[in-house]
Amino acid sequence: MSYSELTAHYRRIAHLEHVAAIIGWDEAVMMSRNGGESRADAQASLGVLLHGLRTDPRIGNWIEAAAAEVAGEVEKANLREIRRDHARAVAVDSGLVEACSRAATLCEQAWRTQRADNDWQGHRPLLEEVVALERERATVLGEALSLDPYDALLDGYDPGMRTAMIDPIFEEIGGFLPQLLEQILEARASIRVMPLEGPFDIESQRRLGRRLMEAVGFDFNCGRLDESHHPFCGGVSDDVRITTRYDESDFTRALMGVLHETGHAKYEQGLPVELVDQPVGQARGMSVHESQSLLMEMQVCRSPAFVRFLAPLAREAFPGRAAAQPDAWTAGNLAALQARVERSLIRVDADEVTYPLHIVLRYRIERALIGGTLEVRDLPEAWDAGMRELLGLSIGTNYRDGCMQDVHWSSGALGYFPTYTLGALLAAQLRQAAARAIPDLSERIAEGDLRPLDDWLRERVWQRASILEAPELIREATGAPLGTAAFRAHLEERYLTG
Amino acid sequence: MSYSELTAHYRRIAHLEHVAAIIGWDEAVMMSRNGGESRADAQASLGVLLHGLRTDPRIGNWIEAAAAEVAGEVEKANLREIRRDHARAVAVDSGLVEACSRAATLCEQAWRTQRADNDWQGHRPLLEEVVALERERATVLGEALSLDPYDALLDGYDPGMRTAMIDPIFEEIGGFLPQLLEQILEARASIRVMPLEGPFDIESQRRLGRRLMEAVGFDFNCGRLDESHHPFCGGVSDDVRITTRYDESDFTRALMGVLHETGHAKYEQGLPVELVDQPVGQARGMSVHESQSLLMEMQVCRSPAFVRFLAPLAREAFPGRAAAQPDAWTAGNLAALQARVERSLIRVDADEVTYPLHIVLRYRIERALIGGTLEVRDLPEAWDAGMRELLGLSIGTNYRDGCMQDVHWSSGALGYFPTYTLGALLAAQLRQAAARAIPDLSERIAEGDLRPLDDWLRERVWQRASILEAPELIREATGAPLGTAAFRAHLEERYLTG
Repeated sequence: MSYSELTAHYRRIAHLEHVAAIIGWDEAVMMSRNGGESRADAQASLGVLLHGLRTDPRIGNWIEAAAAEVAGEVEKANLREIRRDHARAVAVDSGLVEACSRAATLCEQAWRTQRADNDWQGHRPLLEEVVALERERATVLGEALSLDPYDALLDGYDPGMRTAMIDPIFEEIGGFLPQLLEQILEARASIRVMPLEGPFDIESQRRLGRRLMEAVGFDFNCGRLDESHHPFCGGVSDDVRITTRYDESDFTRALMGVLHETGHAKYEQGLPVELVDQPVGQARGMSVHESQSLLMEMQVCRSPAFVRFLAPLAREAFPGRAAAQPDAWTAGNLAALQARVERSLIRVDADEVTYPLHIVLRYRIERALIGGTLEVRDLPEAWDAGMRELLGLSIGTNYRDGCMQDVHWSSGALGYFPTYTLGALLAAQLRQAAARAIPDLSERIAEGDLRPLDDWLRERVWQRASILEAPELIREATGAPLGTAAFRAHLEERYLTG
Repeated sequence: MSYSELTAHYRRIAHLEHVAAIIGWDEAVMMSRNGGESRADAQASLGVLLHGLRTDPRIGNWIEAAAAEVAGEVEKANLREIRRDHARAVAVDSGLVEACSRAATLCEQAWRTQRADNDWQGHRPLLEEVVALERERATVLGEALSLDPYDALLDGYDPGMRTAMIDPIFEEIGGFLPQLLEQILEARASIRVMPLEGPFDIESQRRLGRRLMEAVGFDFNCGRLDESHHPFCGGVSDDVRITTRYDESDFTRALMGVLHETGHAKYEQGLPVELVDQPVGQARGMSVHESQSLLMEMQVCRSPAFVRFLAPLAREAFPGRAAAQPDAWTAGNLAALQARVERSLIRVDADEVTYPLHIVLRYRIERALIGGTLEVRDLPEAWDAGMRELLGLSIGTNYRDGCMQDVHWSSGALGYFPTYTLGALLAAQLRQAAARAIPDLSERIAEGDLRPLDDWLRERVWQRASILEAPELIREATGAPLGTAAFRAHLEERYLTG
């Protein structure tokens, strides 16, 4: 049976992907300062080995023969995912894969100190190397898959997603969002928000974060919370590793970050156990993944309903601070703090209203970098021009808060940024659909009870894994293709009313 | 060039060994409760891959051709190590490897509860299976390598070590140590030692441990200290991971454990960077490795000279406890506490005087088990007879503290035990040689300054990696073959004088 040969082969690949996930987490969270160079070598070799398994010449024949053997929805979908994985893998030779991996690891490691030092001149040659290699990879992939080079990269993060689908959506956003932002800023100018005064000790932040993770359904038997410079969700589905970074002057920042990553983590923990070692059992691309984190963070946890549940827990975590500012620690003020809107330089600090504008900037730039119409040396100027146009802000030589602020490009992740905003749109659309199915959803959220929402998501998103392509998953779960309407309605409801 | 093909191939193996080391550390230190099953699969697949690389059919031809190509000491040694590694890998077929691994895993898992329950009858059949398979593996390996079966197992932990070298050494120990132990117990019976009263909070223990690790030369840019159930030294040479387990009632236990592992760690950190990814660049077997941990723990850190340096730091770490018992926290009493000697049943709790007697017992028994002159069913009687002869203690049916106390045999590790005592002998011999070369060694140790000793070890042991076989390394470093004289002199000096 060729299909069982295929599944056995992909089981081995899944085991090595498990290893790679844990090693990657270790590199970001645990690795010693001087351990980077040999780690880069080790990770590159693991990448080469995985690449070797993915390009095994027997796979093509197995796929041919298996097509006649499989009948069920899951098996057919698995074969489709295997075909896609194999086609992408054979398109790029191992020398290029290794070069990309090694350049990206070194560039990312350097970024950690060079960003802090605002050292654009030091970082530029490393990033040039990464971009040159990614251009090459995009071209080779595009030729093999009959895709535009940028689409070929995008497809690696979000299978089936194309610029042809993103362009009209981002155009709509570009059309309504700047005016809506103006309206919102004007409407909220008169709302008095009292900032919380710190310091907020790290250990109490850690405890509050864990308590809320448990409340919203993170399973600590199947995962951990740690610290890293750049928060992320990694690991494997029965051992999900999320990280955060604490700031003594603002506990809500790490807290909302933790809840965001918890959204990612619950998706991973909710994938079908019996499919965990097959391609069809994996999460359905980065846009759907981001929809789960933003549904948790933006749609649920920053909502006034959930903040009513959160407020007493926060006061309990910081009793001295809360007693010193009783008016500031009300649910109402805490909710208002979570609904501040402001034009700012930093994407990861941006509110959900301005966030898509940061993404539109990055989408334009990375398309130009891959398309060859922009060079790395001209990146700071392009960044500054885009920020002026979209957000009315200038960067100057503050590279660390400009084009060096994100690790993505330095780590070789071009084609990833649009998934953030596609995820935000989908989160709103899922929330809207769930609210139709669960009439008392807001009341349950106000009690900190996410089980009805989780049950709904488990059936329609988590357990569907990669059985459907993303557009079909979205249509099946929400009854409509991905669009901007639910997101726009959400912004208007949260920021213009009440 | 076949030699460069070989080094490239073994570089890839080293990279995957790096990955396996970090993954293994993660499993012991970080893994979530429910993460074990998929992790076992992932680690097994990594093992299969590594085995595949080690048995690559091209290696044999490369070795043949490379013999004519290499000239320098390091290259020749590397080729020798590669030949040994490959010969061991191809000698045992994968069916037997898997059977051994499976039987050992089942037996080790059962041991955890059966030892606690003193259930020898339940454990016996599982251990019989392990021993039968290890006999088979030893025979197959021995035939392939032209070695006695037990030597073939020993060689896996300590390349080049042979029973012909161990037998006369252990015979000498069996000859002088029981009487010396009598003498020591008699001489020390009148020494009054005041135990320290706890509790000792974990955070202060952690800080004190880190402070002493730094003082004795652990490089925290190239390593970490964490916690695990069974303390160990893992990771890779530029990112060494040591672990400990804290006991609130006794801080010296974790502290001396940490310093022991620091000895292992400094050896790894001191290996030649330029050879890190080749077999010749690895540590020179388990006896030399253990010599480094015991040199640190027994020769240096438990010495009265070092305890003079340590005492004020310990008082500073636990000011309340020290103030409550001023007489107990003197350097003199702390040193006396580290020099207690007692006949006891349990190897891991034994002092350095009685420890070799525990090892001689195990060595005799495991040789007989592999040689077929002792069956597992007769193990308890053999154990009891050996304990009576060597330590004057009887076990009766207390199997838990008798032949079931160690996990080694249940986990398939036969041939490992002698390296503990060979390491202790070598530690004393190295210390003696270093003292000849560094006239003020004791004074420097009393100041907590190990740099002269480190410089001496770096040149003679650490940087020599696996360039020499162990017997030559020992002769080159100490001027004599491995023997008991230095160890005996050390015991007499520490436990009979002053």
